Amino acid sequence: MTYCVGLLLNEGMVLLSDTRTNAGLDHISSYRKMFRFEQPGERTIVILTAGNLSTTQATLARLQEEIEHPEASGERSILLAPTMLKVAEIIGACLWSVRDAVDRRIRGEGQFGPASMIVAGQRKGGAMRMFLIYPEGNFIEATEDTPFLQVGEHKYGKPILDRMVRPDTSLADGQKAVLLSMDSTLRSNLSVGMPLDLATIRRDECRVGEQRRIEPGDAKFAKMSAAWSKALQDSFAKIRI
Amino acid sequence: MTYCVGLLLNEGMVLLSDTRTNAGLDHISSYRKMFRFEQPGERTIVILTAGNLSTTQATLARLQEEIEHPEASGERSILLAPTMLKVAEIIGACLWSVRDAVDRRIRGEGQFGPASMIVAGQRKGGAMRMFLIYPEGNFIEATEDTPFLQVGEHKYGKPILDRMVRPDTSLADGQKAVLLSMDSTLRSNLSVGMPLDLATIRRDECRVGEQRRIEPGDAKFAKMSAAWSKALQDSFAKIRI
Repeated sequence: MTYCVGLLLNEGMVLLSDTRTNAGLDHISSYRKMFRFEQPGERTIVILTAGNLSTTQATLARLQEEIEHPEASGERSILLAPTMLKVAEIIGACLWSVRDAVDRRIRGEGQFGPASMIVAGQRKGGAMRMFLIYPEGNFIEATEDTPFLQVGEHKYGKPILDRMVRPDTSLADGQKAVLLSMDSTLRSNLSVGMPLDLATIRRDECRVGEQRRIEPGDAKFAKMSAAWSKALQDSFAKIRI
Repeated sequence: MTYCVGLLLNEGMVLLSDTRTNAGLDHISSYRKMFRFEQPGERTIVILTAGNLSTTQATLARLQEEIEHPEASGERSILLAPTMLKVAEIIGACLWSVRDAVDRRIRGEGQFGPASMIVAGQRKGGAMRMFLIYPEGNFIEATEDTPFLQVGEHKYGKPILDRMVRPDTSLADGQKAVLLSMDSTLRSNLSVGMPLDLATIRRDECRVGEQRRIEPGDAKFAKMSAAWSKALQDSFAKIRI
């Protein structure tokens, strides 16, 4: 499986993904699940992927091809699309058509190729927007009421987001929240694994300001994880029932 | 859905269940999911149920009937079974046969009737044992390495159990851990709801020592929940990344 999460905050957007991919328990690999399409200052789009790897790779390859050959693609380049909504529509349609083609071939094997994605971005003059694209290509959007979106193994790490994330949460606190949400997920579910990819996009900068790969054994992450564990233990000891 | 959790600790066992049942979003009801079968001092068995309500109710009704008419049941009374392992086998077989009968009838409707259970108990002279009975009637047992079992919506509340529960956890801390695990689940998933049923069985007492229903608005639970929220917020504010 996978765990990816995105926050849509007043100050900007925070995105985090793991890298574990598995086809059965004895075929575990590491694959990047965060992809950036950008004309810095003009337009930035970050895609986080979950689900069938052949589906997500084929979808991204097709999106890339349409960016490189916009004349052939019939207005399917996400770097030329007039709005972020149109970007989400293009990605949703592409994801569905790839998945549908995969499904036709592997359905006979009792397997299916669904995948879902978080698409976050902003174009110059437009608003920051973040979408969750479902395997069928339809999508929902993050809002003030629900400022975070998750794909993959989302349940373990949801309680801390429910408690900590509001639209006025700072980018620094947003990074902390997604990392602690991931930390809980890593501890409870083997199908989610390091390294992690963390990206931050400040409002109206239309570029990824910070992108960081957090490797296994990363000192800062380990320290944060240990400090959070200790804080939880201390808080637990103090609570009365 | 449902969330039920049981801890097997050195000092005894702690069991907690919610009461929400839903058949679609507009048909929500409250049903007890904790059931006690007991000859105090001789044998205690507590069953927590998750899944299809008609399956769990029919299974419990059959178990009750076999207790009341042991002569007719061919040694299927869980109050007469020689060991807790045999108790788990009887319950597993009963659950599977009920579910199988339900499935045959409703499969045509595209619906299924699976259910799972946690069975915890001790008979005089035997060890405390706790089992998770799967919908197919097979089961696994809690051990020193894995001293807790969950059924239903288990993911939201698992991180806190992973961090806090060891076999040498006290009964008081065990109660705290399951209540906080439930609190996280209640916040993140609408299909789990108050009131709650909490039971504690001390080692070798062979009876439920404390059984408490926690109603919505219960002052102690609300206080604990608020204190935990505040402790998490304070800890979160102190963590550096």
